[in-house]
Order: sequence, then C-alpha cells, then structure tokens
Amino acid sequence: MRLHKMLKQLDIDPNGVEDFDVISLMPPQYATKNDISYINDEKYLSSLHTCQAGAVFVDIKYKDTNLGKNIIFVKNPYLVFAHLTHFFKYDQIKHTQSTTQKQKNTKIYEGVFIGENVKIGDHCVIMPGCVICDDVTIGNNVRIYPNVTIYKDSIIGDNVIMHSGCVIGSDGFGYAHTSDGQHIKIEHLGNVIIEDNVEIGANTTIDRGVLDSTIIKKGAKIDNLVQIGHNCIIGEYSILVSQVGFAGSTTTGRNVVCGGQAGTGGHIHIGDFTQVAARAGISKNLPPNTKWAGHPIMELKAWQKLQIKIRNLLK
Amino acid sequence: MRLHKMLKQLDIDPNGVEDFDVISLMPPQYATKNDISYINDEKYLSSLHTCQAGAVFVDIKYKDTNLGKNIIFVKNPYLVFAHLTHFFKYDQIKHTQSTTQKQKNTKIYEGVFIGENVKIGDHCVIMPGCVICDDVTIGNNVRIYPNVTIYKDSIIGDNVIMHSGCVIGSDGFGYAHTSDGQHIKIEHLGNVIIEDNVEIGANTTIDRGVLDSTIIKKGAKIDNLVQIGHNCIIGEYSILVSQVGFAGSTTTGRNVVCGGQAGTGGHIHIGDFTQVAARAGISKNLPPNTKWAGHPIMELKAWQKLQIKIRNLLK
Amino acid sequence: MRLHKMLKQLDIDPNGVEDFDVISLMPPQYATKNDISYINDEKYLSSLHTCQAGAVFVDIKYKDTNLGKNIIFVKNPYLVFAHLTHFFKYDQIKHTQSTTQKQKNTKIYEGVFIGENVKIGDHCVIMPGCVICDDVTIGNNVRIYPNVTIYKDSIIGDNVIMHSGCVIGSDGFGYAHTSDGQHIKIEHLGNVIIEDNVEIGANTTIDRGVLDSTIIKKGAKIDNLVQIGHNCIIGEYSILVSQVGFAGSTTTGRNVVCGGQAGTGGHIHIGDFTQVAARAGISKNLPPNTKWAGHPIMELKAWQKLQIKIRNLLK
Repeated sequence: MRLHKMLKQLDIDPNGVEDFDVISLMPPQYATKNDISYINDEKYLSSLHTCQAGAVFVDIKYKDTNLGKNIIFVKNPYLVFAHLTHFFKYDQIKHTQSTTQKQKNTKIYEGVFIGENVKIGDHCVIMPGCVICDDVTIGNNVRIYPNVTIYKDSIIGDNVIMHSGCVIGSDGFGYAHTSDGQHIKIEHLGNVIIEDNVEIGANTTIDRGVLDSTIIKKGAKIDNLVQIGHNCIIGEYSILVSQVGFAGSTTTGRNVVCGGQAGTGGHIHIGDFTQVAARAGISKNLPPNTKWAGHPIMELKAWQKLQIKIRNLLK
Repeated sequence: MRLHKMLKQLDIDPNGVEDFDVISLMPPQYATKNDISYINDEKYLSSLHTCQAGAVFVDIKYKDTNLGKNIIFVKNPYLVFAHLTHFFKYDQIKHTQSTTQKQKNTKIYEGVFIGENVKIGDHCVIMPGCVICDDVTIGNNVRIYPNVTIYKDSIIGDNVIMHSGCVIGSDGFGYAHTSDGQHIKIEHLGNVIIEDNVEIGANTTIDRGVLDSTIIKKGAKIDNLVQIGHNCIIGEYSILVSQVGFAGSTTTGRNVVCGGQAGTGGHIHIGDFTQVAARAGISKNLPPNTKWAGHPIMELKAWQKLQIKIRNLLK
Repeated sequence: MRLHKMLKQLDIDPNGVEDFDVISLMPPQYATKNDISYINDEKYLSSLHTCQAGAVFVDIKYKDTNLGKNIIFVKNPYLVFAHLTHFFKYDQIKHTQSTTQKQKNTKIYEGVFIGENVKIGDHCVIMPGCVICDDVTIGNNVRIYPNVTIYKDSIIGDNVIMHSGCVIGSDGFGYAHTSDGQHIKIEHLGNVIIEDNVEIGANTTIDRGVLDSTIIKKGAKIDNLVQIGHNCIIGEYSILVSQVGFAGSTTTGRNVVCGGQAGTGGHIHIGDFTQVAARAGISKNLPPNTKWAGHPIMELKAWQKLQIKIRNLLK
C-alpha cells in the first residue's frame, strides 16, 4: 500500500511527506527504504540519524529537534503504530483444506491440520488435534503431543518436544490507548523461534514478537502453564519452572533458572547462570551468577536474613 | 419436574408445600412463580418478602422468623441447592453430527465442531480444532484461533478475538460439602457473555455463572492463562494481565488494570479506573481511582513505604 | 535389551557386572530381578540390602561402603538414570487410525481420537477434539469435555469430570544435568491414576510419574489452570483452587484445602484436613488439622499477627 493512502486513512496530513509503496513495518534498526517505523522513547531518538526507513513516526514534541530526514511528526506515535499494524495483518491459515505431506519417517496423525507452505523435517511425530498454521518450519526429530497450536511463521528447531495444549505464536498483549480509555490492538507481525533441543510443557503459551521474534534458545526447558510474553529471549539451557510468567521483552542469559510461579516485569534482563527462587517478583535487571528471591526481589541471602528478622518481629 | 418429586428424591418432607411444575432454579431476585430458589446468607433474608419464587429453601434456624410465604426450611440450604442443580443439568452438545453453516464471508475450517442451534455472524473466522457447543451465539467479525472450546449457551459479541486453547463457559468451582467431608457438585446452569471488542488470551479459562452469567464487558482485554471464576463481571475496557486469577463473583468497574499473577478472593469489587500491581493479593473491595499493591494488599504508596522500612530492617 | 548393551551405549564398564535381559527401570522398592534401578540420595542407601533389582546404579563415592550385591558404581547416578530412561521410551499412540468402539450408552463424538487398547466404561461422554492415547482405561459415567488430552497408560475412575483443555499424563519436568550445563531429559515411564468422583478443571495439567504413578484420590476436586507435578499424590476429598502449583512428589492427606495460586516446593507433605490460604508458598511439611498462610509459610495466626506488626511499622 502507498504511504499516503495509509496516512489519509489515519487522518495524518501527508503534506511534505514523500510517497512510496510500503513493504513492511519494522523496528528502526532493521528498516530499509521501503519500510516504515516509529520511535516511542526519547532514548532511541539518536538512532534516527542512521535509520534507513522510508518514514518514521515521531512524537510531535520533538518537532524542533534535528532528527534527520523522513520523519513524520504525530501526537501519539504508539497509537499511530497500533493503527499501522492493522494494514499488515494476515490470516493464520489461508486455505480451508489441509495438505498432509508425509516426510521420511515422519508420522502425522489423522486430525492434524497443516496449513500452506509448512515444512516438516524427518523423524517427527505430530499427534491428533494439532494445528500447524501457514509458513511454519519444523526441524527433524520433533515430537508434538496432541492439541498443540503453532501459529503462522513459527520456526521450530531439531529435537524439540512440545506437550499437549501448548500454544506457540499467539499475539502478545499489546495495545495503544485512546484518550477516552479504549485500547487499540497492535497486530503482532513477528513470530516465535524455538531452537534445537527445547522442551515446552503442557498448556504453556509463547507469544509472537510484535515486529520481530520471540526466541527460545537451544536446550532451554520450559515447564507447564508458563507464560512467555512477546519479544522475550530465553537464553541457552535456561530452565523455567511451572507457572512462571515472563512479561514482554524479558531476556535472559544462558543457564538461568527461574523457580515456579515467579514473574518478571517487562524489559528485564537476567544474567547468565543466575537463579531465581520460586514465587519471586523480578522487577529489575539481575546480574550474572547471582541468586535472588522474594517480592520485591532481593539477593537470596538478604531474603533469608529478612525471614529471621520477621520471625523475631513475631516473638 | 414437579417440586414434590424433587423433594422426595432429596428426602425433604413435602408436607405443607404447594406442588408445581418447576421450570428453573434461579437467584431470588430473578425467580418467578414457577422457579425455585435458595438463600444461604442472612443478609439476603429481607429480600424474601419481595421474592416471586414458587419455593425458596432457607436454613431451618430461621424457622421462627417471619420470612413471607413459599419457604421450605432445610438444614443445609447450600447442600440442597447443590443437589437441586443436578435436576437441571444438560448436555453441552446434543447430537453427534456437526452442522456447518457458512455465513456471509465467514470461514469455518475443517475440523471445527459446531453444535445445534449455534448462530454465527458475518466475517468470522473459526480455525481448526475449535468446538462450539449447542446454543452458542457469535457476533460479526469474530476471530477464533485453533483449539478454542466454547461451552453451551455462551454469547459472544462483535469483533471479539479468542486465542488458541482458551475455554469459555466451563463449570465454576462450586461444591456443597456433606458432614463427612465429601463435595457435592453444583451443576452450573448459567452462561458466559462476552461483549464487543473483547480479546481473550491463549489458554485463558472463563467459567460460566452458577445460575446467571459471567460477563466480560465491551473492550476488556484479557491476557494468556488468566482464570475468571463463575459469576465474575469484568468492567468495560478493563485489562487483566497474564496469569491473573479472579475468584468467583469478583466484579470490576470500567478501565480497571490488574497486573500479572495478581489474584482476588471471592466476592470482591474493584472500582472504576483502579490499578492493581502485579502479584497483588486482592482480599477486600478497592475504591475507584486508586492504586494498590502487595499481599495482603495495601495502597501502592504504603507498599512502597513498607519496602523502604524492610530495607532499613536489613541494615 | 541386555544390560551390557545398555552399559556400553552409556560408556560404563560392564566388567564384573552380570548380564541379563532388562525388563524395566523401577524404584528400588518395586524392582525385581530383571529390573534395574538407581539411588541418588544417601538416605536410601540402607534400602539396598533388601532391594531385589538385578542392578542398581549408585554414586561411586560409596564404593567402599558395604551396600549388598548388584551395585554398579557411577559418577553421576541421576545422569545415568536420565540416559537409561531413553531405552524405555514409547509412543503415546501406536497406530495412525483411530478405532471408536461404542460402549453401552457411551457417546463418543466425531473428532475424538482413541488410541489402541483403550477401555471405556458405560454412560460416558467424550466430546469433540479429545485425544485418548493408547492403553488408557476410563471407568463408567465419565464426562470429558472438548479438547482434553489423556496420555498413554492413564487410568480414570468412575464419575470423573474433566473440563476442556486439561492434560493428563504429560511428562514431568525432570532432567539430569551434564557438567557443561546441558539438560538430559528423563523419559517419564510412569502414569497418572485418577480415582472415582474427581473433577478436573479447564486447562489443568497433571504430569505422569517418572517410574510409578501420579495419583489423584477419590473425591478430590481440582480447579482450572492447576499444575500437578510428577509423582504427586492428592488425598481423598482434597480441594485445589485455581492456579495452584504442586511441585513434583508433593503428597497430601485427605480433605486438604489449598487456596488459589498457592504453590509447593518438591517432596512436601500436607497432613489431613490442613488448610492453606491462597498465594501461600509451601516450603515445608505441614502437620494435619492446621491452618497456614504466607510466603514463607507460617501458621495462619502468626501470619495475621505479622500483618498487624507490618501495619504498625507503617505508622
């Protein structure tokens, strides 16, 4: 679609903006000249000087700042972004007929729905009730238990195990808000990448990235009923125990261990080899090779000391 | 069924009770003359004077109170109520054959099961593996991702999005208890109503009302793995983040925000525009336009002050 | 498979070890002469004198202890055990064709997949989208709502109700760890047993035992989105409210009540009739007939006292 047509539909004045065929909506660092992008946070403004995007939506309050070219100033760039995502929304499954292709030693049970342009490797088992949407790629030796859903564009590595009812690639929980308190859905145009040797528990949910990917790195193990928000990156060999909840854009280093029912706020990083006790509320970045507990979170030793203090308080 | 027949099956003396054809089991305020009802809580006793029910089961300890007519005194009215629900239990799906009717621009994929008397609007997409039980009504422009289950009698508005694996209308967790510690199931005879523009996350569960409805009001957004108990009412444009758990009969005003992994006790009300931090344990009613955190819950400012006190305690 | 063949594949010296046809991998107390077993915890070493297993893997640090016969000393018996489980792994469903057998008054809907050697009693209803894997036994009068998955070897009693999306018998979250931080899956060879009159909520997950059974005893009621880890035993008439998480090998007595979002560490026992408040973090054994709350957990009265102290702290 032409950029001016988009702008008109969003009631944004195209005057002075160069028109072009928009290919994609991308983060500033990945955008090329036929893409559009947006900036919502002051700290990314400086990146605009190297941004290749054909157009970038920026808050009108920076109108007098020198930000480079191709800037479109708007009142609420995040709300504009939410509306823009709707131009790029797509079907999970194009056709209503499934096409089952039998790979070498791959067993696809009856009652499995496979969308268009799905690639499945050798020695896989996909059990009844699974739905694999369009353009999904699945590696070799992957075992998918019954009633799993894999949304469009997901990429699954080798030797992955997915237990029943898990959902890979659902939309993240992202909305922009209007001034009268309504929520405008951000269509999630990214995907989920699950690397080799990952196991995912029953009824766990992993949301797709907004524009790029949610990534579960090789050898990570995720238990049942875990929530992984959009754009999370789970490091190699990390372990997330049952009912953990990772808010959007949580990232971890390798071999992180997160006890059951713990949760993170958004945009948190947990360093390599760090361990978090069950039920912890992770509200800040955690450095590597450390141990943490509690809500609000504190170093495990401090938390243990606090419990002694509390016991004394009760005497 | 005749009331006397019910009473006999429950070993309740029908002597002095007028017999009639019972149509339904209803809350006292909605009951009409062919319905039966029950009261379990002293504070509702006064409502009996205006109650239209043909018969109301009340605790025998109020035998000498003037409560109006049509009262049947029993030892444990909640246990009697649990047994009564069994007379009204029904199948989720009557026939074993699905009937797929293609609406205007509505795409129903293969592998979708649609029960009897289901109404589906225009421009809907219902993806493989979904099961829509009998007597469900679905509005226009509704998008239902794979493997969603919608129980009987649910009503879904326009522009609703339901992600994979969510369950709408499952029985609430309600039992009456016998004196020897067994639990008698309360058959849930109500339904779920989801209004326009609601989005429901993957693997979220919303239980049906006991006798009336669990309601998700227009524009509310519910994330993944959230639990909504029976008879909850979620206000317009409210936001429930992942893994929130709302116990039965929790109600909220409009634009309430509830952070991830927070939970409520039963019969709690959260006022308009009130915000609750992640992981809060909501054990009391919260007034409008306030902010809360912690477990037990306290005003956000008090909670922040408490964290400073705790840090000092540790010095 | 012959024991020596297994040992060679695991790079363990078979020298001095008697060879035999291994039938099964069993806990020491259940193993017979054609089974193999392992011990990972010093406190079980004494049980080796009565163990009937054909071979038991034990930590090499006990090489000089008198432990009886048939011991194979290895560096990391838990890691060896993880590798051993892979010799016994099996398909959930052998054939790709479902065989629907109609029992007396049992209604199996279209779109249900039933594996080989499945036994289903009378007066059952199994709704669309359910997948019943091989060798499952289901009693009489069982009601299984849509999109439920029951893994191989599960045993379901009479009058059981299972709500949509629940997963029975998924692999537990068990791995042995290599010295370079990778996780070796323990194939779960046990099963799940659900006794009579149990109800299981929507999207709840119950993991199978590692070698023996995860058991939900008669009359227990489990709400939505609950996690039950491998080898848990839930006592008769116990109640687990929504989003409870029980780590592996948690056991309870009868009529235990566990409030919503509470969780246990592994290998915890909760005594008969004990009640645990919502959101409690159960990190130790709890005696019978007691009440508990908080995280870390304390007696309910202490927790209430603590809240008063905290309120005073804030003044």
